[in-house]
Amino acid sequence: MLTSSALNTLFGAELELKAELFQKTGSFKVRGLLYKTLRLTAEERDRGVITVSAGNAAGALAWAARDAGVPATVVMAKTAVPAKVAAARSYGAQVELVEGDLIAAYEAIRDDRKLTGVHPFDDLDVITGHGTLGLELIEERPDVGTVLVPVGGGGLISGVALAVKLLNPGIRVIGIEPETADVVSRSLEAGAPQKLPTAKSIADGLAAPVCGTHNFGIIQQYVDQVVRVSENALLDATRLVMSRTKLALEPAAAAPFAALLEGKIQLTGPTAAIISGGNLDVAKVF
Amino acid sequence: MLTSSALNTLFGAELELKAELFQKTGSFKVRGLLYKTLRLTAEERDRGVITVSAGNAAGALAWAARDAGVPATVVMAKTAVPAKVAAARSYGAQVELVEGDLIAAYEAIRDDRKLTGVHPFDDLDVITGHGTLGLELIEERPDVGTVLVPVGGGGLISGVALAVKLLNPGIRVIGIEPETADVVSRSLEAGAPQKLPTAKSIADGLAAPVCGTHNFGIIQQYVDQVVRVSENALLDATRLVMSRTKLALEPAAAAPFAALLEGKIQLTGPTAAIISGGNLDVAKVF
Repeated sequence: MLTSSALNTLFGAELELKAELFQKTGSFKVRGLLYKTLRLTAEERDRGVITVSAGNAAGALAWAARDAGVPATVVMAKTAVPAKVAAARSYGAQVELVEGDLIAAYEAIRDDRKLTGVHPFDDLDVITGHGTLGLELIEERPDVGTVLVPVGGGGLISGVALAVKLLNPGIRVIGIEPETADVVSRSLEAGAPQKLPTAKSIADGLAAPVCGTHNFGIIQQYVDQVVRVSENALLDATRLVMSRTKLALEPAAAAPFAALLEGKIQLTGPTAAIISGGNLDVAKVF
Repeated sequence: MLTSSALNTLFGAELELKAELFQKTGSFKVRGLLYKTLRLTAEERDRGVITVSAGNAAGALAWAARDAGVPATVVMAKTAVPAKVAAARSYGAQVELVEGDLIAAYEAIRDDRKLTGVHPFDDLDVITGHGTLGLELIEERPDVGTVLVPVGGGGLISGVALAVKLLNPGIRVIGIEPETADVVSRSLEAGAPQKLPTAKSIADGLAAPVCGTHNFGIIQQYVDQVVRVSENALLDATRLVMSRTKLALEPAAAAPFAALLEGKIQLTGPTAAIISGGNLDVAKVF
């Protein structure tokens, strides 16, 4: 947890920055995927695991699987951030770069090679693992009034909301997702998990085209609000937060600050902002 | 102090990263300039202070002076990193942007306006303030074998070397400076402080054209070795360290890693690398 007096002054807030970019593999994803890997049966491990990911879940599963001696395959888009592809390879995963429908490709490879599928967010063990972030946060700052969480397919926010609300239902949990990849907002509006034909954002880590079923139920029950932010605000927030905090955060991680820049959130009391990861393609942001 | 298993593996080292980029004003400079400001007489304070700087000393003096209620003027090059100019202004300093000989401009403005001159590095109080970094380092890791220090005009390394060597003469202190701004190496070779006609580097914070007189004496006595690194190595090291550690460091701060990339340093035992600052012009590095 870090603080920045410059950001506090700018936003008139008392921000606590949960610096998940310093996690192994550079994002929070390792929390859930490590826990999932540890929960696999011997038979599931022997078959080897596979996931599909914009990048951070790929790196995290690759790292966790290597640690556990489990072969890992990861399905990523050909347009993924090169550093995320390189990271997954460096942890020993077999990387399958595909075009078009990532999830269809993931399911096809999983079934064809009889691998153990690990959904990057729609999985109760993954959600539980991410919940540790919420536990740590409340342990360190029990007085926190609001928690701001970047939202892709709903993995992080469902874990964090579950942990936080079960400990203290008075704490507000607010999700932030890109306008151009707003599947969770649309799902909440529709009352059921939706699927987008395409989802693209400078915040590649948030560009999930689906909201998980498990995630949806938890979000519906425990999350107070999900707001949308523009691509410009995501870019501006990334540059702003990097220059003020010296944290090399990825655009997904800047989503809470994008919402503050756009005046989308009313803050009361100490506010935790989750800086979800730091695997960025710097040339795309500057 | 942070660690990075990726960097340790890459360099076959046990590195302790002293993350000075998280200091107020984004660099170690605030240590020395705050101490200097606190040591001024009432009459010196009343006159107001002036310094000359590539940028980080300017921001640091501006911040320390504001804190102490002292008016500050800072002389910077027209080519200074815009974020560094903006920072000095945001702390309330009067910024004088000049072309040509910065030090001559500084001396002229100082004498003309009867300001209290604060040399950014050739000053015993500034050196003493920087020495606190060495004290902290040895307090936290008394087993450190080598300390790697970015070198500009010699301010940081003279303070750190003094503190470290007085506590434990067995610890090696190694300085790293750009090939294109190697005034300290040249001074050591000549046996007296030298002045360069020009000094330019991607590591703007290290491009001092002079080696301080006080600094020179301390470096000659207490620093084991000063090595030169190429501009390419500084750039590569900045990108490498940012991608592996998620620290948004400036090129000056990457100097220790540039030296490791170029194989200029033999490491033994735990090694502290000072990440001196994080005020970077990202577009110039990526």
